[in-house]
Parts: sequence; structure tokens; C-alpha cells
Amino acid sequence: MQKIAVIDGLQYANWSETIFRQMRDGDVAAVHVTICYHENFRETVTNIAAWNRRFEQFRDLIFPLHSAVDVEKAMKEKRTAIVFGCQNCSPIENDIDLVHMCRQLGIRFMQLSYNNQSLLASGCYEAEDTGITRMGRQVIREMNRVGMAVDMSHSGEKSTLQAIDLSQRPIAITHANPAKWHSVPRNKSDTVLKALAESGGMLGVSLYPHHLKNGSACSLSSFCRMIAETVELMGIDHIGFGSDLCQDQPDSVVAWMRNGSWTRDVDHGEGAPGSEGFPEQPGWFRDNRHFRAILGGLEQAGFSREELEKIAHGNWLRFFVDSFDARES
Amino acid sequence: MQKIAVIDGLQYANWSETIFRQMRDGDVAAVHVTICYHENFRETVTNIAAWNRRFEQFRDLIFPLHSAVDVEKAMKEKRTAIVFGCQNCSPIENDIDLVHMCRQLGIRFMQLSYNNQSLLASGCYEAEDTGITRMGRQVIREMNRVGMAVDMSHSGEKSTLQAIDLSQRPIAITHANPAKWHSVPRNKSDTVLKALAESGGMLGVSLYPHHLKNGSACSLSSFCRMIAETVELMGIDHIGFGSDLCQDQPDSVVAWMRNGSWTRDVDHGEGAPGSEGFPEQPGWFRDNRHFRAILGGLEQAGFSREELEKIAHGNWLRFFVDSFDARES
Repeated sequence: MQKIAVIDGLQYANWSETIFRQMRDGDVAAVHVTICYHENFRETVTNIAAWNRRFEQFRDLIFPLHSAVDVEKAMKEKRTAIVFGCQNCSPIENDIDLVHMCRQLGIRFMQLSYNNQSLLASGCYEAEDTGITRMGRQVIREMNRVGMAVDMSHSGEKSTLQAIDLSQRPIAITHANPAKWHSVPRNKSDTVLKALAESGGMLGVSLYPHHLKNGSACSLSSFCRMIAETVELMGIDHIGFGSDLCQDQPDSVVAWMRNGSWTRDVDHGEGAPGSEGFPEQPGWFRDNRHFRAILGGLEQAGFSREELEKIAHGNWLRFFVDSFDARES
Repeated sequence: MQKIAVIDGLQYANWSETIFRQMRDGDVAAVHVTICYHENFRETVTNIAAWNRRFEQFRDLIFPLHSAVDVEKAMKEKRTAIVFGCQNCSPIENDIDLVHMCRQLGIRFMQLSYNNQSLLASGCYEAEDTGITRMGRQVIREMNRVGMAVDMSHSGEKSTLQAIDLSQRPIAITHANPAKWHSVPRNKSDTVLKALAESGGMLGVSLYPHHLKNGSACSLSSFCRMIAETVELMGIDHIGFGSDLCQDQPDSVVAWMRNGSWTRDVDHGEGAPGSEGFPEQPGWFRDNRHFRAILGGLEQAGFSREELEKIAHGNWLRFFVDSFDARES
């Protein structure tokens, strides 16, 4: 099939020239990259500084995205635009003014919680979900004002529905799948997915094995059928990729993602005792060059060229346009 | 009446030699002083450093409490033992190992939340109360281990009941009154007070006007009747003072206590537009010398010498013995 540019709604790789070259080979125009899980503001700054060095070193391959127009620039220049996002609200600590600071440093997505309760919202692993907190309501308004997208991928159901309702701009679930297809705490109910679509939001479908039916053994055709069914539920304009690709990361990283510094016990998260490490990717999606295989699978499943372009990049591009400009409050 | 030593379960004054001398005049043997509301670990260290300078400068009047035996030392040496406590869990940030660090720096009380949702528990001003979070359960266990008392003064009802249940040691509500006497979000239900007493915990009755029936116009006899009724509910062994005295603080401080840096709106907390400042203390309790007047009022209300000693210091002293030693986990 003809080449189609891709925007990926989430990756957290052990970044390297190899990966950036694979992005170019896979026609990946933009990637939302995770720059923090548990880090506070200062630690997040250090992570951004590491990206600044990568932008310097690999300027022929990558550059930082500031606004949605940078996606077209990336397509034209055959480079990949890098979009910063946080998987947790830890970088703003307990200071609402740090939202604007983070926006100034390039952060364009922020999850309101990561598995656990945060100052803003409940996480999908908490026994109870209060919904959006007093500070959370303030922060959503501030994110709307400065142009930072709300991401509820790891949040609880009630918090997610309230965030959709409270946010003046569409929100995203950058990396998750429908719970109807594979029922785990991280995947989302039809109620959430419908509310997300009706509010103009975006779902990035995940390729992380714990979110896939049959895990690492999930077939490409099952994955493509899931997308077709989700399009029936949400419409063609609200779905993109959010691969959650954690390429080349050592297993110590997934342990840190789950445990941070919040517990003295060991939390296995989506894993289990004896299989704590990163799960193995399905053979048909191991790196950025493999988006093309998925698009091929979707074509076989009956999607038109126009529909493939929406899923591959058009929908995320519209979301970027809607989300990243600052507004006067 | 004969002199009776006093332990006060909470103060947050604009500390000065005047206040430390009033403590001596009032036979105040120990005071739990607030060293943080919203501060992170590093900022809390700065506040402790300021106390280190006070201990140096006013060594004839005050010294830091390390364990319960320091109360007897204070009584003997006619000085006041200063007990550090945090009104929020912000000093431990998202790092459970900072609990032990804070204990090493002298902190003996920590509230799990302050009005709002925290990483550990819900606050009494949130619309919904999750109870104790995943991290909260870990932190309570760690506080139990290192010898730091759980304080739920500003937490929600469900969180408080769960903390009582989860904690292996008795917990405290260092400064609040029964909601039955004066119904505001900060005062506590009979359900909470009974569970607190049954678990060996402590209530410090508050003299902050927003917690008093009729506010600044509350009479001493009404306050003493409230104590008598609370003793009927909780028993004589679970009540002490927790004055919440904010002596000599400018009104900017109460605005900061309420708003920290979590909101861009103005939160009036227990105040109201037009009366945002600190409320005026009742004439019968303006500083540390006035505990004697309250003890006189309680004597008139029929309390025996032995009962007065329990309320004035004996109950808090037992709680300190139960709470502040480290245990091997």
C-alpha cells in the first residue's frame, strides 16, 4: 500500500538513534513521548534537558513539537516531531502555577493520575474513585487555558467521566483499549469511550501486550477487528494509535513505573509474581516500522484510504489543533 | 487552684520570646507545633532549621521533644518541650522513605490530608471521600513502624474511620470539636469520636473560634459543658487540649493556609468574603496563660483534680508514650 504518515499517541522507549531511524522508516511524523511517571518538577526538567541534547544530536531525525503545524513541517522535512507528555501530575507538585511553567517547557499532555490517587484524580488501581478533586478542577481549567491536553489513560472511570465533563476542550485517552475486548483495569468501558467521542476526544489504541486480548499472542486480525468495532462505537473521527511502545527498556524500568517510591511492598501492576518484566510485543508490532503492517491489516478489514488516514494521523492532528494553542482566560 | 501542667495538642503561632514566656507562665510543659501546611520536604527542612535557631536562642525556655520522657524533663526543668508536627503530608512528597527521614528530623505527628485530597487520604472539604489510598495504607504502616502519630484533624470522615481501623497504633485528632456541639466540616461526628476513643486515640479540643459554638462569642461555660459531654461519649482518658492557637499571625497567613498554591481562585475556607482574616479569640483564651482559666472552668463544672490532670496533660502524655518509640518492622 501507499505510504501513510503516522502519529503515535504514546511511546516510552529507551531512546536511541536506532529508534529515531525506525520512526523515519515507518513514516512516523509525530510521537507523544513520556517524559515523566513519578518525577517532580525539577526531575522533569532534567528529563527535558536530556531531550534537548537529543534534539541537538539528532537534528536530522527529530525536533520538538510546539504547535500542531509542526506535524506538517515534520511530514515535509521527513523528520519526527516529538510531543512531550507526563503520565502523572507529579511535575506540578502541589503548585498550580507549575502547569503554565510545564507548558512553557514544551509539555503538551498531562495525565491527571497514574494508577494511584493523585492530588487531582483517582487512578484505575484504587479501590474507590472520588472523581476530580478540588485542586483537579482548578488544574483542568488551567490546562485548558494554557493549552495542555488532559490525558486520562491511567485514571479511574468516575474521574475520567468527570474530566470529560469539566474540561472545556476535548480530552484524550492516549493509550488504552476497550474493556469489552479485553477486560483489565487499564482498558475503558463503552460508557467512557462514548462520552469521550461525543465530547470530541481521542482514544489511542494500545499495543502494549497487557492491554491486548491474548496478550503477546494477540493476532493482528483480532486487533484490527477491535478497531473496527470501536469505530462503530465511537465513530471514525476519534481513534488513533497510542502504541505504548516501551522499546529497548530494561525490566527494572517497568518495576519503577509501577512502584515509584510510593510503596515499601512490591506492586506487580499489570504483571504477576514470576512475570514482572515487560511483556513481549506481538511479532507484528515490535517497532515504529510496523505501523505499516497494522494499516495493511486495517485495509484488509475494509477501511478506506480516507479512513486509514484519519486513524493513522488525521484524528490526532485535529486533536493537536484543538488542544495546544493558549487561550486568554 | 493548684498549678497543673498542660500539654497542648496544637499551636501555630508567630513564635517569639513573648509566647515562649507565656508558655512558662501558663505551666505549658509541651506543645505540638505545626511546622508545615503545604511545604515540600526541602521547605520543611528550612522550617526545622528556623526552630533549631530558636532552640539555641531560647534554651532556657524551650527544647525539642524526642520522646515522651522529655515531657517529665520539661516539667522538672520548667521549660516547654516542642513537638514537631505537619498539618499535611506534603513533606513526604511521593516518597515513602521520607517518612523515616521526617521522623529522624524530629517530626512526631503528620496529618494524612489538609482539607483537600492528598496522595494518602481525603480532606474534609472534598465533596467525596475515597478513604485511605493505596499509598496511604503503606504510609500508615511506615508511620506506625518509625513512631510518627497519624493525625486526622482536617481529613474526611471515611478516611478518618479507615485510618483508625488501619493504624496499628492509636491515632489523634489533635484539634477539633464535636460536630454535635457546633456543626462545621472540621468538627467530628460522634461516630468518629467513639471509634477514636475505642481504639485508644486522642481528641484535642480546639479553641479556634470557627470550631466553637457562637464563634468568638463562645462562653467558657459552654466550652466546659462541651468537654463534659464529650467525656461522657469518649471517656475521661481520650480528651486533651488542642487549642489551634495562631497567636500573633497576620491575616496573610490564614489565606496561605487555605489557598497554598492549589488554586487560582480564592478559597475562603472556614471564613467568608468580608471576614477572611483570623477570627478573634474569645476573651477567656487569648494565649498560653489562659489554660488555667479553662481548668478553673472545668473544676467548676465538677471535674476532680485527677480528671483535670488527665485532660491537662496525662492523656496526651500516655499518647506520646504509645506513639513515639520506633518499632522494628
